[in-house]
Amino acid sequence: MKTLTREIWMEVPQRRAIVSLHEQIERLVVESGVRDGLVLVNAMHITASVFINDNESGLHHDYDAWLEQLAPFDASPSRYRHNRTGEDNADAHLKRQVMGREVVVAITDGKLHLGTWEHIFYYEFDGRRRKRVLVKIIGE
Amino acid sequence: MKTLTREIWMEVPQRRAIVSLHEQIERLVVESGVRDGLVLVNAMHITASVFINDNESGLHHDYDAWLEQLAPFDASPSRYRHNRTGEDNADAHLKRQVMGREVVVAITDGKLHLGTWEHIFYYEFDGRRRKRVLVKIIGE
Amino acid sequence: MKTLTREIWMEVPQRRAIVSLHEQIERLVVESGVRDGLVLVNAMHITASVFINDNESGLHHDYDAWLEQLAPFDASPSRYRHNRTGEDNADAHLKRQVMGREVVVAITDGKLHLGTWEHIFYYEFDGRRRKRVLVKIIGE
Repeated sequence: MKTLTREIWMEVPQRRAIVSLHEQIERLVVESGVRDGLVLVNAMHITASVFINDNESGLHHDYDAWLEQLAPFDASPSRYRHNRTGEDNADAHLKRQVMGREVVVAITDGKLHLGTWEHIFYYEFDGRRRKRVLVKIIGE
Repeated sequence: MKTLTREIWMEVPQRRAIVSLHEQIERLVVESGVRDGLVLVNAMHITASVFINDNESGLHHDYDAWLEQLAPFDASPSRYRHNRTGEDNADAHLKRQVMGREVVVAITDGKLHLGTWEHIFYYEFDGRRRKRVLVKIIGE
Repeated sequence: MKTLTREIWMEVPQRRAIVSLHEQIERLVVESGVRDGLVLVNAMHITASVFINDNESGLHHDYDAWLEQLAPFDASPSRYRHNRTGEDNADAHLKRQVMGREVVVAITDGKLHLGTWEHIFYYEFDGRRRKRVLVKIIGE
């Protein structure tokens, strides 16, 4: 069994933003030498997501507006109890559950085995500080 | 390590529908010869989900009504920016995030290791064209 | 390849509650002897979730209130068709989809490879009976 483990650090300057991880993951699959296996890509923070969807800016805007409707930002301690702890990011913990923590992607013939429009993204819901994504590849 | 990789093609005649994948996945696990491992089942399209829940038509109706409430279909370019691209399926990209892209299921003693009522489904949110599900089995 | 398979049984006395699985999963990773690999943790029931987020009671309260807003409990047969079958738990099947069925976590150097605040939980949405979580570890 071959494995590769890599933490990708980043700092998103906005509170919320969608960042492509796709090319970095493609390169790590090549670097791993794995021809047949799985890659796990997960946020290491609980106010961020890794997800797969379309690389289209209009849709990214739609996700943001939709998530804000489902779980609005509200720094006050009245809407969210979590924000009584001094935090202001309860909404980010909720939004992240809708978009998910992780993706698991197949590797076949040494490449990510994805559909035509599948693209791997990081979704930051509480940025402006350094955060990490974990990439774990296993296979042979 | 043994692996099996298979793309399952289908064409759902409705815009939205839930289709069982369960027996096909069971057969592929047997075909793989894997006794102990993992199976990844994922939509290869970004307007569809693979999920595990109850094989009960009333519940499937409830999912559909609920998702339509959370992210209504609206082909116009006003509600969703994605639909300014000429697409009409922005709602499908949102619904799919609630239901998820993939499931990872354990294989034990050569069988899917599932609870009594766990059943693997494909959820189409923008059908009427050929689409694929990927099955990747690894183990030994 | 090494593997470990374990079902964790529990009975939550409330209808809904969040229960930490974290220390049990940590111990199973040690027991498995796997230094480098993956662990799958999934609910074996379709009205429960396994998820990773903050170990903070205010946030857990926020999740509960938020999910109740997105998919309210209603035992009557009018809101949810699933409840025409004699069940009263349709809301639980919906809530579980938001929070997810499973998590896949990397194992590196013989330990769960998690961010500082990542904590593994079980979320019961229809308790007061015995239920199971599956832990499957693969690696070497």
